[in-house]
Amino acid sequence: MAVWYDEVLNENVRFGLRLKETLFMGENEYQTVSVVDTHEMGRALLIDDLWMTSERDEKGYHEMIVHPAMTTAPKIERVLIIGGGDGGTAREVLRYPDVKHVDLVEIDGMVVDVSKKYLPMIGSAWDDPRLHVTIGDGIAWVKNTDLAPYDVILVDGSDPVGPAEGLFNKTFYQACMERMTEGGVFVTQSESTMLFLDTHVEMVKTIAEVFGSAHPYYRDVFLYSAGTWSWTYASKTTKPTAINDDRMKFISEITEIYNREIHLGIFAVPNFVRRRLA
Amino acid sequence: MAVWYDEVLNENVRFGLRLKETLFMGENEYQTVSVVDTHEMGRALLIDDLWMTSERDEKGYHEMIVHPAMTTAPKIERVLIIGGGDGGTAREVLRYPDVKHVDLVEIDGMVVDVSKKYLPMIGSAWDDPRLHVTIGDGIAWVKNTDLAPYDVILVDGSDPVGPAEGLFNKTFYQACMERMTEGGVFVTQSESTMLFLDTHVEMVKTIAEVFGSAHPYYRDVFLYSAGTWSWTYASKTTKPTAINDDRMKFISEITEIYNREIHLGIFAVPNFVRRRLA
Repeated sequence: MAVWYDEVLNENVRFGLRLKETLFMGENEYQTVSVVDTHEMGRALLIDDLWMTSERDEKGYHEMIVHPAMTTAPKIERVLIIGGGDGGTAREVLRYPDVKHVDLVEIDGMVVDVSKKYLPMIGSAWDDPRLHVTIGDGIAWVKNTDLAPYDVILVDGSDPVGPAEGLFNKTFYQACMERMTEGGVFVTQSESTMLFLDTHVEMVKTIAEVFGSAHPYYRDVFLYSAGTWSWTYASKTTKPTAINDDRMKFISEITEIYNREIHLGIFAVPNFVRRRLA
Repeated sequence: MAVWYDEVLNENVRFGLRLKETLFMGENEYQTVSVVDTHEMGRALLIDDLWMTSERDEKGYHEMIVHPAMTTAPKIERVLIIGGGDGGTAREVLRYPDVKHVDLVEIDGMVVDVSKKYLPMIGSAWDDPRLHVTIGDGIAWVKNTDLAPYDVILVDGSDPVGPAEGLFNKTFYQACMERMTEGGVFVTQSESTMLFLDTHVEMVKTIAEVFGSAHPYYRDVFLYSAGTWSWTYASKTTKPTAINDDRMKFISEITEIYNREIHLGIFAVPNFVRRRLA
């Protein structure tokens, strides 16, 4: 018998993968967490029954949220990851030898525990001594004015419902900006332009108000099955074109997707978004 | 009751839309053809139970197959479309006033009839006097050495099984090349890099053997739910960077997605494909 799990993206669209087996199902005060093994995509993590990441296509998301910031920020010594409990974002950040300290602040300890146990190929850098994991609220974290500032802040949260909701408002972006070094780069995932265009446009506009400008960028994520996915890049002084050649050369040799041409290409804004942002 | 139709992309992946109603179901010597009305994507065409195009996202495919060729070919007076029975590719081609004659050669007359009847918003240029529709075999068409040559040839066929199979081999590409004017540009859809990477790589390599070089380009198509989709651009002498500024300016004002930055960005090749093509 073929067993499928279909994510219902909204009441009118669903995306299913045929399962080999269910490895974990749990629930806590924040959300439900599951890990399944699939025929096509290898092992995959679900939160609140939505596909989050899978063994086979995770680089399409993790390389995209990490490298545009890491190849352009003037310094990359101190990095903050909010969310990112599967460990994939931290792994990509830690590829750079210049990184000295990474704080990963994930609200749901179950995501980290389950990812360590069932998805070690995604979070393959948990043991790196530069990585400091805190189970806690990322929103409260960035409001702590005693923190040493970060060179790069990456917001790797889920959709703007449930515990991630507070990652989508002006107060949060403002606090992030205030926790950054001169020229520091902020990136957040910013939703699908097909299924959540209003959310995407609102995020880009709000981030631009806070930082002075915002640069959305676009690429598909197979597992999300949501057409063009987006992330948004912002900095008070650094531009996405300020590529550090040494870092670009270094990282392009080990990435699955990301390279200089991809970097420059993903910042192209489709007309239908451009018209909404104008 | 919620009624869904799920395309089974392969035995392990499926993508479903909730239906309002089924408008047409037919079968002929080539394939099955259906039109449904969906809650999320408006009306949609299926061939052999695979999603082909939908009212809401069709521009993500049709703008991509058409405009990179049309903004760079030295001349665009005579255009050949092979396949494209839904009329969307022809509509985009006919936006350019410089176009004088378009041959559309579609093997399955039922696709054209059904598209005219149920998808008039996609094929909105059927009555343009410059458009000449032939129901027949595109492969035989390009082998006719009496044809006047084309400035642009676009291959808008389905997957390499069934009637479209012959659109994926060297003899066919060779015949297309021989039917083109000096500097003419050839573009074909060239499959998903996630689900059909071997086919994609084989196509790009074969087209490069015929034309001397080949330039794959990439963007998602929501309805295909197949991650990064691809098209491949080839010409004996024209390069994808040879943008005609007047045409680019003209078309960018009326396209939903396509513009100069998108054009330049889509030709970026992900590392995992680049390594296979090296």
